[in-house]
Amino acid sequence: MKLIDLYAKLKKDISYIEKELERSIDSDHALLREASLHLLKAGGKRIRPVFVLLGAKFGTYDLEKIKHVAVPLELIHMASLVHDDVIDDALTRRGQLTVRSKWDNRIAMYTGDYIFAKALSVATQLPNPAVHQILSKAIVEMSIGEMEQIRFFFHAEQTVRDYLLRIKRKTALLIAISCQLGAIAAGAEDAIARKLYSFGYNVGMAFQVRDDLLDLCGTEKEIGKPPGSDIKQGNITIPVIFALREPHLREPVLKELNRIQEADGQTDVSYFIEMIRGSRGIQLAEQLASRYIDKAIAALDGVPNIQAKKDLIGVAHFIGNRSY
Amino acid sequence: MKLIDLYAKLKKDISYIEKELERSIDSDHALLREASLHLLKAGGKRIRPVFVLLGAKFGTYDLEKIKHVAVPLELIHMASLVHDDVIDDALTRRGQLTVRSKWDNRIAMYTGDYIFAKALSVATQLPNPAVHQILSKAIVEMSIGEMEQIRFFFHAEQTVRDYLLRIKRKTALLIAISCQLGAIAAGAEDAIARKLYSFGYNVGMAFQVRDDLLDLCGTEKEIGKPPGSDIKQGNITIPVIFALREPHLREPVLKELNRIQEADGQTDVSYFIEMIRGSRGIQLAEQLASRYIDKAIAALDGVPNIQAKKDLIGVAHFIGNRSY
Repeated sequence: MKLIDLYAKLKKDISYIEKELERSIDSDHALLREASLHLLKAGGKRIRPVFVLLGAKFGTYDLEKIKHVAVPLELIHMASLVHDDVIDDALTRRGQLTVRSKWDNRIAMYTGDYIFAKALSVATQLPNPAVHQILSKAIVEMSIGEMEQIRFFFHAEQTVRDYLLRIKRKTALLIAISCQLGAIAAGAEDAIARKLYSFGYNVGMAFQVRDDLLDLCGTEKEIGKPPGSDIKQGNITIPVIFALREPHLREPVLKELNRIQEADGQTDVSYFIEMIRGSRGIQLAEQLASRYIDKAIAALDGVPNIQAKKDLIGVAHFIGNRSY
Repeated sequence: MKLIDLYAKLKKDISYIEKELERSIDSDHALLREASLHLLKAGGKRIRPVFVLLGAKFGTYDLEKIKHVAVPLELIHMASLVHDDVIDDALTRRGQLTVRSKWDNRIAMYTGDYIFAKALSVATQLPNPAVHQILSKAIVEMSIGEMEQIRFFFHAEQTVRDYLLRIKRKTALLIAISCQLGAIAAGAEDAIARKLYSFGYNVGMAFQVRDDLLDLCGTEKEIGKPPGSDIKQGNITIPVIFALREPHLREPVLKELNRIQEADGQTDVSYFIEMIRGSRGIQLAEQLASRYIDKAIAALDGVPNIQAKKDLIGVAHFIGNRSY
């Protein structure tokens, strides 16, 4: 299955969620509305709502209920992007000006706060405290993940485990609960919701590993920004951690890391990228992503054999094969 | 009644909430724990938890339940302070280094995000969706208020209504729901919870008007920072709005506002303060605060005549007479 076919099939429901997303941030405050809409209109794959919709197929599929988790999950993702842009001094994202560059950092910070709170506020319209708990805990974990990312900037001695815990918090957790909350909001069995969580977690891990590979191996056109932006920020990703283990690469890579750090990321990183691309780190990271995809699919063992299961497997394969 | 007597009477319960506050932010992440604790240890009057405790006296007073709203309300207040400090470039608060000056803006932003999310996460341990709704909506309103504050910086044409709506969102709402949620968490009658909300709203309005007066009329020792920090930031408060209505003051005050804005607040503001102090703005603002205190006390009409009612009235009078 191609991803485009899945989107086509879900088109009506995705459009509905899209409208609800707009409605949710239709604040009576002009600037907040404008900043939030700017963010919303910048697009994105809406992958979290898609996972919510697919998760909900395992219960009683009622968009009126499901929207109360689909909208918050996309909003939480959006809010974390605005706050990341403040931190990263990012001027553009997805080829669009960021809120912080179109307005300023103050507006971006409060827009993020507003969207976070709005996300939870939408979810509290469901009378299910478990949903509220899962969402607020996820934001707690995500903010810990953001802090961890800062702590590990340019930290060459970090382990694979440090990296995996970080991307769990940064990415995998939100995808995991998207699948899980879709099922919960639709009243699916607990056992199914748990399996969907596990599916989402593993898909999310693969997704982030692939994303990190893309930043090193993609073209500017594919990524939407020049390659190497991770390392310019100090974000040491899994291919780099693997490359640092290769005796002949360790010293030159460390030297480059040092140079990039001293230049505060404001330097050409093409030699660094070239070294990593030439290392075994790329292949090892690809293998890691594939293992997560396998685990994701295995997690679906025992869930009912409905079309949504095939669709989830299709999405997993798509993420596993994401080109770069 | 003196406020100190009330704190003495509630001492055991306040200490318990204090410990729970510490426990709530005892993250497994060292830097977050450190930054949050730093903030917590900087103190504060814990006025929101005190209102929660008093509100809860109108129902079944069970600290084990009440803590699930007392802790979040103080955490939300703390989180908003950290984010304000990022915006204000504040170096100190209550005589202590701010998170952003002790660490940096990035740490402060994520610490704020973490504390906001933690607040909601603690509250979701109560199985009452209304509590979650009220809290998340309050954060939505607070972030709108923060944006409004930015929009109105150095905006001389704002109305009393603009100001009142802003301080409602910035301060009064959180105090209102502190009283209300104390009652709700203790299972008090809805009608009582509504009256307590109204009490808290009016007390909160008076509190902020008094706070704004303090920034103009207090000494550095009383305020904990030099007077005039509001106007240096561009925050036009109610005494200034009133002063601008006096024909002989309007032009010189506007001129000073212009000068301060052009200097980006990095200038001596003593002449500005002197003009406002000499205006009728001070007295009018005092009268406004008194009217809110009267309304607060009137809102308690019909709530049971227990000691907590007397204590609430005592706090209201204390806030109404806050010296500066």
